[in-house]
Amino acid sequence: MYKYNYLLDFTKNVFLKMGCSEKDSKIIAEVFLAAELRDHASHGMIRIKDYYQLWKAKRINVNPKVRIVHESPSTAVIDGDNAVGMVAARKSMEIAIKKANTAGTGWVATRNSNHFGIAGYYSMMALKHDMIGICLTNANPLVAPTFSISRMMGTNPIAVAIPAQEQPPFVADFATTPIARGKLAVAEKKGEKVAYGFVQDKNGHPSDDPAILKSGGSMVTLGGDRLHGSHKGFCLTAIVDIFSAVFSGANFGPFVPPSVAYLPVLDKKVGEGTGHFFGAMRIDAFQPADEFKTKMDQWIETFRSAVPAEGQDHVIIPGDPEREAEERIMKDGIKLVPAIEEDLKIIARELNINFVQ
Amino acid sequence: MYKYNYLLDFTKNVFLKMGCSEKDSKIIAEVFLAAELRDHASHGMIRIKDYYQLWKAKRINVNPKVRIVHESPSTAVIDGDNAVGMVAARKSMEIAIKKANTAGTGWVATRNSNHFGIAGYYSMMALKHDMIGICLTNANPLVAPTFSISRMMGTNPIAVAIPAQEQPPFVADFATTPIARGKLAVAEKKGEKVAYGFVQDKNGHPSDDPAILKSGGSMVTLGGDRLHGSHKGFCLTAIVDIFSAVFSGANFGPFVPPSVAYLPVLDKKVGEGTGHFFGAMRIDAFQPADEFKTKMDQWIETFRSAVPAEGQDHVIIPGDPEREAEERIMKDGIKLVPAIEEDLKIIARELNINFVQ
Repeated sequence: MYKYNYLLDFTKNVFLKMGCSEKDSKIIAEVFLAAELRDHASHGMIRIKDYYQLWKAKRINVNPKVRIVHESPSTAVIDGDNAVGMVAARKSMEIAIKKANTAGTGWVATRNSNHFGIAGYYSMMALKHDMIGICLTNANPLVAPTFSISRMMGTNPIAVAIPAQEQPPFVADFATTPIARGKLAVAEKKGEKVAYGFVQDKNGHPSDDPAILKSGGSMVTLGGDRLHGSHKGFCLTAIVDIFSAVFSGANFGPFVPPSVAYLPVLDKKVGEGTGHFFGAMRIDAFQPADEFKTKMDQWIETFRSAVPAEGQDHVIIPGDPEREAEERIMKDGIKLVPAIEEDLKIIARELNINFVQ
Repeated sequence: MYKYNYLLDFTKNVFLKMGCSEKDSKIIAEVFLAAELRDHASHGMIRIKDYYQLWKAKRINVNPKVRIVHESPSTAVIDGDNAVGMVAARKSMEIAIKKANTAGTGWVATRNSNHFGIAGYYSMMALKHDMIGICLTNANPLVAPTFSISRMMGTNPIAVAIPAQEQPPFVADFATTPIARGKLAVAEKKGEKVAYGFVQDKNGHPSDDPAILKSGGSMVTLGGDRLHGSHKGFCLTAIVDIFSAVFSGANFGPFVPPSVAYLPVLDKKVGEGTGHFFGAMRIDAFQPADEFKTKMDQWIETFRSAVPAEGQDHVIIPGDPEREAEERIMKDGIKLVPAIEEDLKIIARELNINFVQ
């Protein structure tokens, strides 16, 4: 088990050695570790290797000039200058919050960025300002639209964080597919099948093979199939893609660049890099913040007291499992599987920094 | 078959006779008929009876003062004064568009309203202004959160309309449940079972009985069950409820008032009436409108050309089926089932207006 602070410092040092500034390295490390703490390890330390290899391949910019290229009182478009995604995303959300302070709400579309880690992190930046935070991003194409076999969209997540008064905040952070890509990888490693409703084969027939993406298969959208509403899931995944990429001038759908160096740069581009979208809504632009947050307490308490289905404990309020994980993992430490430890040791050796267990 | 204009005039006359103004009656009729044209008959003429009976029970206000009670440069909260929902909603979206003209985006939360018909209508109001339109509403509680049997939420729809240049606009308009409430009623009338994944019984077990809501059952959220992502559907339904009701000061979740007179007024209220949420985003607050719309053409053409799954024709772009229905129904006319015709005849007789077929 690793202490939070140990991995935070290590991660910061990796990005410092890659040439990122002190400030940027600190932000990047904080977001990687936020994923570990919130028990979304698929967006945590496992992805440092991806960034390291993109850097070695000279495919990311460690000295970016993240800048506003267009704005209105409540909006801005940011060019991320091919930064590490966390750097472009954090700056973008800060600008959304600043806009919300003066205009009531702030909406920022970001292009020319890269994989930014855990979406919930940015939405939660709004909470301490008594704002609602929203974060969307597109991602590498793995998901087919309803009725199709073409991998045209990412698992495009939606994160929405809403503050309450006495209750902890409502924090939804979910891919717009039935399951995350990482869960397929886990099942594959274990040699297990997955349930039907997550993936389809190269002809579009339902499959329970977690490795089906390697033989022309694809993930499906939330809903699973047309009968059960996958066309609604398609709407969601598409809206996230359009807000992230068409508003910002990034690549949309099948043209989103790979977030790993072992996949080649795509031949065709329709914009700049990966796209994100951020929103901040100042609560007192609608209601006095205390009244709103007290009503959110009442909302959360109402839903917490819903009658459980037979065999179930209780309703889970979005954000509860991640918050409980944070407390537990901050105390007990972060567990890394041996394969990730090995990757980090190699990176540490090559960059001449310390990594011991 | 009825001509569009015939039913438009009839509907307008019904609301005029109920005491609505000329202007309001015209708006109300236009929204009812928009549902018929877009082949969402569940939100069309069938619901005139509900409004008529609410009026007879003195539960709606036909002379409302819909007014702004709070605002910032990009936001407003509207009190609908217990208006017919279409009147409060149309005014709210107009204000969102006005805000977007000056602040880049406009966001309006509306309380003290009633059922407003088809959500897509309001989101599409933004299109001719070169804006993206968004519309959310909460609704009568029929849906249980994941792991629960309590009917705590409506089928809370999301509508998003995005303009393109040569291509028709992208218009998503969907309930955050696998199917609409109306489809259960249709199956029940036909004596048919429904697929598993739409409803559960009073203990929370999957059911194929479309009448299960009458014996303590409930609808489930998009995803169907926890394994297939119903907790993500719950997040969506909840976000729509919070944006519609907690931002505006309306009733949330289980406290949303009935939209039919045969159900009693609820004992407990936590706000005023039903809540909606509207957004308008001026495209050129992000990108020059022509560039954005041309890129939307490219987005739509890319997705239209996705390879179909075996046995399927092609990918459906959100909004295509409704637009095709509009053209067809405007030409061929609107078909009303005999039960609805009978209801309308009774209303016509009682209000002393003409209704012939």
